[in-house]
Amino acid sequence: MRIDIISCVPNLLDSFFAHSILKRAQEGKYVEVVVHDLRDYSVNKHRSIDDYAFGGGAGMVLQIEPIAGCIRALQAERAYDEIIYLTPDGELMEQKMVNQLSLKGNLIMLCGHYKGVDQRVRDLFITKEISIGDYVLSGGELAAAVLADAIIRLLPGVLNDETSALTDSFQDNLLAPPVYSRPFDFEGNVVPEILLSGHEAKVEEWRYEQSIKRTKERRPDLLK
Amino acid sequence: MRIDIISCVPNLLDSFFAHSILKRAQEGKYVEVVVHDLRDYSVNKHRSIDDYAFGGGAGMVLQIEPIAGCIRALQAERAYDEIIYLTPDGELMEQKMVNQLSLKGNLIMLCGHYKGVDQRVRDLFITKEISIGDYVLSGGELAAAVLADAIIRLLPGVLNDETSALTDSFQDNLLAPPVYSRPFDFEGNVVPEILLSGHEAKVEEWRYEQSIKRTKERRPDLLK
Repeated sequence: MRIDIISCVPNLLDSFFAHSILKRAQEGKYVEVVVHDLRDYSVNKHRSIDDYAFGGGAGMVLQIEPIAGCIRALQAERAYDEIIYLTPDGELMEQKMVNQLSLKGNLIMLCGHYKGVDQRVRDLFITKEISIGDYVLSGGELAAAVLADAIIRLLPGVLNDETSALTDSFQDNLLAPPVYSRPFDFEGNVVPEILLSGHEAKVEEWRYEQSIKRTKERRPDLLK
Repeated sequence: MRIDIISCVPNLLDSFFAHSILKRAQEGKYVEVVVHDLRDYSVNKHRSIDDYAFGGGAGMVLQIEPIAGCIRALQAERAYDEIIYLTPDGELMEQKMVNQLSLKGNLIMLCGHYKGVDQRVRDLFITKEISIGDYVLSGGELAAAVLADAIIRLLPGVLNDETSALTDSFQDNLLAPPVYSRPFDFEGNVVPEILLSGHEAKVEEWRYEQSIKRTKERRPDLLK
C-alpha cells in the first residue's frame, strides 16, 4: 500500500511516521507513506497556497490551483483507488470503513486547514470525504494521521501478533473486556479470580460476558 | 490551562506541539503542554511498563504501578480537574464536550497502548474516559493529540481571528457552508455569483441555506 498525504503543514506529521507501529510498517515495506508540502505546488513566487474567501468572512481558504497541481502530479505517476479529503462534514469514520480501506492499493489523503479547501477541489477531484468525529480540529493533519494509523495497523504483518487486532473493540461490534496485569494485588485491589483459574474456556466465557455487559452499559447503540 | 500527557511513546507527539496553532498557543502562554514518558515511572531497572494479561491472550497490558506513580507525582504538584483516559470504549468525543473541557484549568491525558491499561487504573484514578471515534488506533497518543488540539484552538487568544471558531461546523449543530477562493474561474468551473455580489446580507442568507442543505443531505441526525 502507498499513502500520499498532502498538507500545508507537513512537518506536523514528522514524528508520527517515525515511531512505533508506523515506523515498523514502513521499514517492513508493508506501506509507503509520503507527505507532500502543498507549498511546493504554489503558483506564485511567495509560495502562498491560501487566500480570502469570496463573499468575505473570517478564515482563509486553501486554493484550488496548488491542490490540483499536486494531485495531478501524483496521478501522472500511478493510479489511485481513492482521493480522500479529511473534513468535519465528511462521512463518519468507523471500523468497517477502515477495514475496507485497508484492502486498497494507493490512497491520497488531502488535509484541510483554515476554513477548508475551495469547494471546486471537492467537486472535481475528491472521491471520498471522511470525518474522524463530530468536532473541529486546527487542521486535517491529525485526522489524516488517525486514518492512516487505523488502516496501517490492519495490514497483514504489521502487528507483532496477528490475532491481536481481531480482539479489538468494534471488530465484532462489541467493546473489549477489561484487562489486568501484574501485580495481582495493588494496594488491596486484586485481579478477578477467574483470570487466575487456568481454565481457558471459562476465561473466554467471562471475557465475552464482560464485553456484552460493557457494551450494554456504555454503547447500547452498537448492539442494534 | 495546563495539559499533562502520559505516554509510553512520548516522541510520537514531538512534532505536533512544535508546529502551527499548538506552537503559537504555547509561545503565547495560553497553554502549557507537558508530555511524560511512562518509562520514567517504571518500578524495575529494565524500565518496563507492560506485561502479559492475566488469563492469557494476545497483546500486552500497561501495568498499574508506573501509571499510579506518574499520576500521583503530578497530583502532588497541583490539583487536576479531570484525569482522562483515551480509549475506544470511552464516551464519544463531540464538540460540546470539547467546549466544556476548554473551560477547565489542569488536565491529565493518559494514552493507552497495546491492549490498554490495567482495569484498576480506570477504577481508581480515571475521572473521564473519552473515545475520539468508533475505530481502533495503535495507541492513545493520536487520540490525546486530537483532544488537545480541539481544546487548545478554543482557548481565548489562540486563533488569529476570534470569530473564526464560531463559524466552524458543529458550533451551531450545522455543517459549514462551501467556501471558494481565487481564481474565480478554474478551467471553466466558476464561483457562485452571489458570493461576488457584495450584498453581505444575501451572502449570509445563501451560506445559511447551504449549511442547512448540506446538513440535511449528509448528517440529518444533527438537526434533531
